[in-house]
This record gives sequence, structure tokens and C-alpha cells, in this order.
Amino acid sequence: MKKFEEKTYHTETIYTGKIVQLNIDSVTLPDGNTSKRELIKHPGAVAVIALNDEGKLICVEQYRKPMEKSLVEIPAGKLEPGEEASTCALRELEEETGYTTDSLEWVTSFYTSPGFADEIVHIYFTDQIKVLDQRPDGDEDEFVELMELTLEEAEELERNQRIQDAKTAYALLYWKLRISE
Amino acid sequence: MKKFEEKTYHTETIYTGKIVQLNIDSVTLPDGNTSKRELIKHPGAVAVIALNDEGKLICVEQYRKPMEKSLVEIPAGKLEPGEEASTCALRELEEETGYTTDSLEWVTSFYTSPGFADEIVHIYFTDQIKVLDQRPDGDEDEFVELMELTLEEAEELERNQRIQDAKTAYALLYWKLRISE
Repeated sequence: MKKFEEKTYHTETIYTGKIVQLNIDSVTLPDGNTSKRELIKHPGAVAVIALNDEGKLICVEQYRKPMEKSLVEIPAGKLEPGEEASTCALRELEEETGYTTDSLEWVTSFYTSPGFADEIVHIYFTDQIKVLDQRPDGDEDEFVELMELTLEEAEELERNQRIQDAKTAYALLYWKLRISE
Repeated sequence: MKKFEEKTYHTETIYTGKIVQLNIDSVTLPDGNTSKRELIKHPGAVAVIALNDEGKLICVEQYRKPMEKSLVEIPAGKLEPGEEASTCALRELEEETGYTTDSLEWVTSFYTSPGFADEIVHIYFTDQIKVLDQRPDGDEDEFVELMELTLEEAEELERNQRIQDAKTAYALLYWKLRISE
């Protein structure tokens, strides 16, 4: 669907980094006027809603520089170039939590900030995980701590703003709905 | 919580635009090594889960440049400097849909992309809306079309990837849970 399409007549790349690229697109609007759009290009990401044998949610706590605080989130990570989303989901689950699974069910994929970024997050579910004999190395500049939470504990962390990101907020509702059905 | 804090020893501002600012922070990691973080500063946003008298969800379709396609989303918009989130939510509801309300209930606030951006979205709910006599002007470079959807219609749009953003995906689960309770 291209309703209200904005046609690009010029793209200026401001910055190309390890994770994001910033472009400024000059566009023609549906009414013929022109405007500029600030656009972040991102490789995309995955996240895993993983429940253990006790029905607890696997989460990781990590420092999030943009907010200057640590957040408790479901395991997640960026896609490597050419990597399949499900491969990435399994890799991130293993690296961040030391668990693995042979049952990953795709739940949904959504754009996180459609106004200015093309980042998409692919969300998977599993309730069949087992501990790896040896946990693989993750990114060398990533420090995470494993947590396993009941729904009540997770909702308490959400009230306390320690769970406070879109994919984990989505995961808690998904989990609640799954329990209620 | 500052667990695994990354201390900034240098910030370079690459770009300051109308919507985003891009900074590169040089940081010291918990293990004493250093790294760089690409950080998008964003003013924050609001979104409204609004149900009409028939229990249909108010949505707007608009072109989203980062994805080069139009998406169907719940009404939303950026915070103006100094603007209260609830004031912004009412303003965006009125501008984008022509509806107003005197009952806005805060639902949650979440960071959309905590790995690289500080954008927070404050989500509100209302099931008490009425049509404005006159719809206020919105942003002059914004073109949106109103839609009012049953849950079944919304879920069909989600399957067809016309609803495909984090806040609207969250809204559909929130709505389903509310109906089921």
C-alpha cells in the first residue's frame, strides 16, 4: 500500500555507523509541496518470549545507554547481515541466557518507531527450553544478567519501570492472553 | 538501576534535526574496556487506544517513509517541547481523527528501541469519544485517513502487514485482553 506516497527526490547520508545509518530524504508530498524526512536505517532485530518448565519468563537485565539506566527485557538482538530471523533468535537466546530450544514459534514482527526508523523486531515464542552445556560467547561489549520471572514479578517490575520497552510490554500481554485462553 | 553502567567520557553530536539528534558516546564498560554507542535522541511520543460507541478501534492510515509504505496505526504523535503527555494525546486524537474525549486513561509508557534510541511512547485508552464540531489543523506535512475497525478487521490487517508497528500491535493485545476480562 502506497497511499499518500512521499516521493524522494534527494537522499543525503549524514552518518553510517555500526548499527544505524542516518539519511535525510527530501520528498514531494501528496499535495505537491516538499518536506524533509529524518530516517534511521537499522538492520532489524529479534526477540524471544521464552518460558521455562515452571512457566517463568526468561529475561535479561542490561544497561541501556540511551536511557542511562538498566532495563529488564526479553532476550533480543540485532540481525547479522544475511541472517535468518529464526537463526538470530536462537543465537541470541543461547548467547544471552545459556538456554536453547528446538521449538521457536513466530509470533509477530513489528516496526518499533515507524515515524523515523525502519527497525523491525521479529518476535518468537517457546515454552520448551533446556540449559546448554556450554553457553556461547556473545558480543564482547555486552553485559547481561539472567532473570526468571513469574507473571506477578514481571508486572511488578513493569510498575517499577524496570521493564519498560515495547517488545517486553508486548510479551507480557501476549503471555497473559496465552494463560487466559 | 545502574547495573552494568557504561560511563561516558566523550559525546560527539553528529546531527541535530527537527525530530532526532544523533550522538556518538564513547563509554567505559563494566570490565574497563571502552566502546562507542550510537544514540538517537527523540522528544518522545504519545498514542491513543480509542474505541467508539460501537466498540470499534479508531485508527489512521498514513505513509511511513522509513518503510516506503502506508501503515494503519492507532493515533499518535510527537511531544512538543514542554507538553504534558496527556495534553499531547488529546491533541493528536483531535488533529488526526476529529474525535475528542474528556476521559483519557494512562495505560503504559515504553521505550520503542532501547538499544539505540531514547524515544518513549506514552499510551492512553478511552472508550468515550465524541465527534468534534470542527477538526483542528494538524501538521501541514501530514496526510492521514481515518479508519474504524472491529477486532476481526484489525487482526486481518495485522496478518496482511498493514498493521505492523509496536504500539498498534500492543494496542490489539490490550484490547483483546480487555474484552476477555
